Amino acid sequence: MLATAEKTKAAQSLATAASAMAQNEVHLRDLMADEARCMKMIVEVDGMTLDFSRQRIPAEVLPHLLDLWSEVDGAGKIQAMKSGMPINSTEDRSVLHHALRAARESVYRDKDGVNTVELVWGVLDKIKAFSEKVRNGEWVGATGKALTDVVAIGIGGSYLGPEFIYEALRTDKTARESAGGRRLRFLANVDPIDVTRATEGLDPETTLVVVVSKTFTTAETMLNARTMREWISKKLGSDSVAKHMVAVSTNTEKVVEFGIGQENIFGFWNWVGGRYSVCSAVGVVPLALQYGFEVVADFLSGARAMDDHFFSAPAEANLPVLMGLVGVWNASYLGFPTRALLPYCQALLKLAPHIQQVDMESNGKRVKVDGSELQSDAGPVNFGEPGTNGQHSFYQLMHQGRVVPADFIGFKESQQPVELEGEVVANHDELMSNFFAQPDALAFGKTAEECRAQGIPENLVPHKVFTGNRPSSSLLITKLDAFQLGRILSLFEHRTAVEGFVWGINSFDQWGVELGKVLATQVRSQLSKSRKEGASVSGFNYSTTKMMQSYLA
Amino acid sequence: MLATAEKTKAAQSLATAASAMAQNEVHLRDLMADEARCMKMIVEVDGMTLDFSRQRIPAEVLPHLLDLWSEVDGAGKIQAMKSGMPINSTEDRSVLHHALRAARESVYRDKDGVNTVELVWGVLDKIKAFSEKVRNGEWVGATGKALTDVVAIGIGGSYLGPEFIYEALRTDKTARESAGGRRLRFLANVDPIDVTRATEGLDPETTLVVVVSKTFTTAETMLNARTMREWISKKLGSDSVAKHMVAVSTNTEKVVEFGIGQENIFGFWNWVGGRYSVCSAVGVVPLALQYGFEVVADFLSGARAMDDHFFSAPAEANLPVLMGLVGVWNASYLGFPTRALLPYCQALLKLAPHIQQVDMESNGKRVKVDGSELQSDAGPVNFGEPGTNGQHSFYQLMHQGRVVPADFIGFKESQQPVELEGEVVANHDELMSNFFAQPDALAFGKTAEECRAQGIPENLVPHKVFTGNRPSSSLLITKLDAFQLGRILSLFEHRTAVEGFVWGINSFDQWGVELGKVLATQVRSQLSKSRKEGASVSGFNYSTTKMMQSYLA
Repeated sequence: MLATAEKTKAAQSLATAASAMAQNEVHLRDLMADEARCMKMIVEVDGMTLDFSRQRIPAEVLPHLLDLWSEVDGAGKIQAMKSGMPINSTEDRSVLHHALRAARESVYRDKDGVNTVELVWGVLDKIKAFSEKVRNGEWVGATGKALTDVVAIGIGGSYLGPEFIYEALRTDKTARESAGGRRLRFLANVDPIDVTRATEGLDPETTLVVVVSKTFTTAETMLNARTMREWISKKLGSDSVAKHMVAVSTNTEKVVEFGIGQENIFGFWNWVGGRYSVCSAVGVVPLALQYGFEVVADFLSGARAMDDHFFSAPAEANLPVLMGLVGVWNASYLGFPTRALLPYCQALLKLAPHIQQVDMESNGKRVKVDGSELQSDAGPVNFGEPGTNGQHSFYQLMHQGRVVPADFIGFKESQQPVELEGEVVANHDELMSNFFAQPDALAFGKTAEECRAQGIPENLVPHKVFTGNRPSSSLLITKLDAFQLGRILSLFEHRTAVEGFVWGINSFDQWGVELGKVLATQVRSQLSKSRKEGASVSGFNYSTTKMMQSYLA
Repeated sequence: MLATAEKTKAAQSLATAASAMAQNEVHLRDLMADEARCMKMIVEVDGMTLDFSRQRIPAEVLPHLLDLWSEVDGAGKIQAMKSGMPINSTEDRSVLHHALRAARESVYRDKDGVNTVELVWGVLDKIKAFSEKVRNGEWVGATGKALTDVVAIGIGGSYLGPEFIYEALRTDKTARESAGGRRLRFLANVDPIDVTRATEGLDPETTLVVVVSKTFTTAETMLNARTMREWISKKLGSDSVAKHMVAVSTNTEKVVEFGIGQENIFGFWNWVGGRYSVCSAVGVVPLALQYGFEVVADFLSGARAMDDHFFSAPAEANLPVLMGLVGVWNASYLGFPTRALLPYCQALLKLAPHIQQVDMESNGKRVKVDGSELQSDAGPVNFGEPGTNGQHSFYQLMHQGRVVPADFIGFKESQQPVELEGEVVANHDELMSNFFAQPDALAFGKTAEECRAQGIPENLVPHKVFTGNRPSSSLLITKLDAFQLGRILSLFEHRTAVEGFVWGINSFDQWGVELGKVLATQVRSQLSKSRKEGASVSGFNYSTTKMMQSYLA
């Protein structure tokens, strides 16, 4: 049960409701028959409709969830974030990714009173000018050729968000036209194989490399940056580096030391967490180079629209709040350890990996803000693939194995509609037939009686029964363009924040990534000594010693 | 606890051990200190080393797991599969994917006594001849040009396996050289966006389309096949289809009706399940076109080597059996609902999506072979991304949130080694430093005392504590080439089978995918009537009606 609010009235009501449901086996077949209930659980905001009526939330439980939100002072916590309070308390930082997409004239102050929006637009203006120069051929490479291709080096938050947006816009007609054959590649993994993959078919003469690292010390990114510097220098000489490499970083000294011109650094700030950084220079530099600044500006506007909705709508009509409360109900009250993200749109193929990071790095925690231990697990395991692909993969388990709460996303219009003569429906309608069918299949299932009525042989009946009662939400959105994409990003970012607020955890730090780095340093040092001086493996446990010996043999 | 064997002695011992562990909080720090135990849990087979000493399996429990395997007659079940008994009982089919990679002279008979290996080699010989003709330019397109590019249309098992192998070999030096600039694309999703993505930069004149569908009725694949037929016909005329399209299917009639020549059908058989079909024509046709038949033959040999090991090694030295028993222990006794697959190799970026399908579609079941209900959940949710990328994403949760048993994979040599002058280690060693460090970070963690000893301020200590005791296995393999890739595929296929054998489920059917298809038909029909005749939405529940009305508006 919920740890943060275990003594509140709403939390008690929810716990009682959850155990009553478990005992009475309340089925979604019954809940879905209550039209008044369903009506309340379909919420439309500016052409984006959330249907969460297939969540296992009885009509009388929804108000308790909203009460819980009040009891944890959800509105106050949103306000604290909006206004720059240092809610990332373990790092004493403001959390202001909404400032990254604010209108030029707005004001969001950080904890020291600085208007961050001014800083943001300073960098955006610089990116606009820079990206236009590169795109129109004013900025050229060492041999005078235009730079038509970009390799963006970064990992985690400096990679997953930008890649998600890049893929989502590849088939958007406006963005595609604006890209005009330019290429954008990402280099994330320190595995040298990834260098081969990222540079395949590229020529240093026409390639610009963007190195993205807040501290300019991230081990993977910096080794890849040095590898790409060598790739450029080898062909064009070391003097060419300044013309072929730029940086997104806050560490001017290290960037300059690396050989990148000070004027070619695009900054961001400590109130931007890596996984919330796609709207900063981290994403805007590579995306503006690829699609032009105007497309990226539309994307930022979309994110801003959702921020404004999140900051102002009442809880019962607030999409991120509702989705967050559903998430808390599923993870903490009904005890579901996973959730699936299922966009019925191939352009969103990298949405799930990005949100997997946003959510699991934010809410995969064991203690509350005050350091006390959570009494139950917080954030779930997030995974997903685009539909319909997933239907031919892991949906078997979702229908007849474990219960996995799911979020379906579909669009009214396709980015690339196809309609063949003689077909029953257009291709996009075929796709969407599945989008509408799957949530009902999960919710309603198929009983043994229904199987028998169809004449299924008795020995096969148990294998063909679907228990149903598997919860999901559906989001129906007009069309996947840059603006709607911004809304989707912001929606999922804020859902995670809402859940963290209810659990009382800090969704903006990530201390759990540190220990592995420390141990890797010890291994690296051993490998170096063993390779260079033949030193034997020492200081590790039995198993690690054996495996490293085998590796070095 | 384990349902299938709940009354056996070993199952009782395991249940007792699991609850004792939970009570005494046996920690991996203690288990890892027992060198004799660790020694038994590191098993090497032909240059592939499995270290499962970081599983939460006390020394005295391992024999009980092996006893459980005996009690469910695991060896007998393997033998039944090997010898073609119809162990896919709900479909009355043999399960013989090992025959797909058998040596020409071996004999594997199906349930009707037919030697399947003869059939397999008949098709392999045909693929070899065909792929050579296409690759050497003897087979040309309608305008006389060589076909240098291939689009393989298929979904689920007809897509994930081939894509996994394609990506894994892209940076293998032999395969890469043999590809010589040829291109292979996959078209899976029925979303028309995927057509745009798959055909980007391709010309029908130089493109061969391979349509992969066992029944030639898969909705997504057939609509995509018709869409690609139109793409070809529009430019080259409808007569050109026979020169630009071939099929992998068992339904000759439908293929010919579609317009593909009968001689251009590559067959497979009902004893090949979709998710186990990458070694059949499903994978071999596109992969032989891309990399040449010899490379694919090496891949098949590797799979065969692991099959032979699986069929002959004693349980305590049998890699798939050991990994399967670990899986059952984690899912059924320790109750972990998920598991992560973490290859430290960017070329394996599609391993996790493929194994996600293999495992979740096989073991995401609710009933046993005999139709009785399982008393607990069976197969877990599988997910994963390559390391080190995952470290900057969901590892936060794995270290400080929920417990996620993990499988790490690393290689002694890189496909694409890079060593820069002046670096502490080569890039591959940098990657592998993380491979060796993460399992220990998960297992050992970091105590509050250790934090305090480092001078971490008291208020931050709880945030920087790692509880550890998080289980994982590590696989260290020589090098990722076609042969080792085959071994890896077969290892994970058989792990899933082992788990299914212990649970007593049928890992080879997939009835859970049917209901969604039926409901999609109903939606498709409604969308067609609404679009073409303006029919109003009827016959759906309130929520679906509202959402479909919004979609159609």
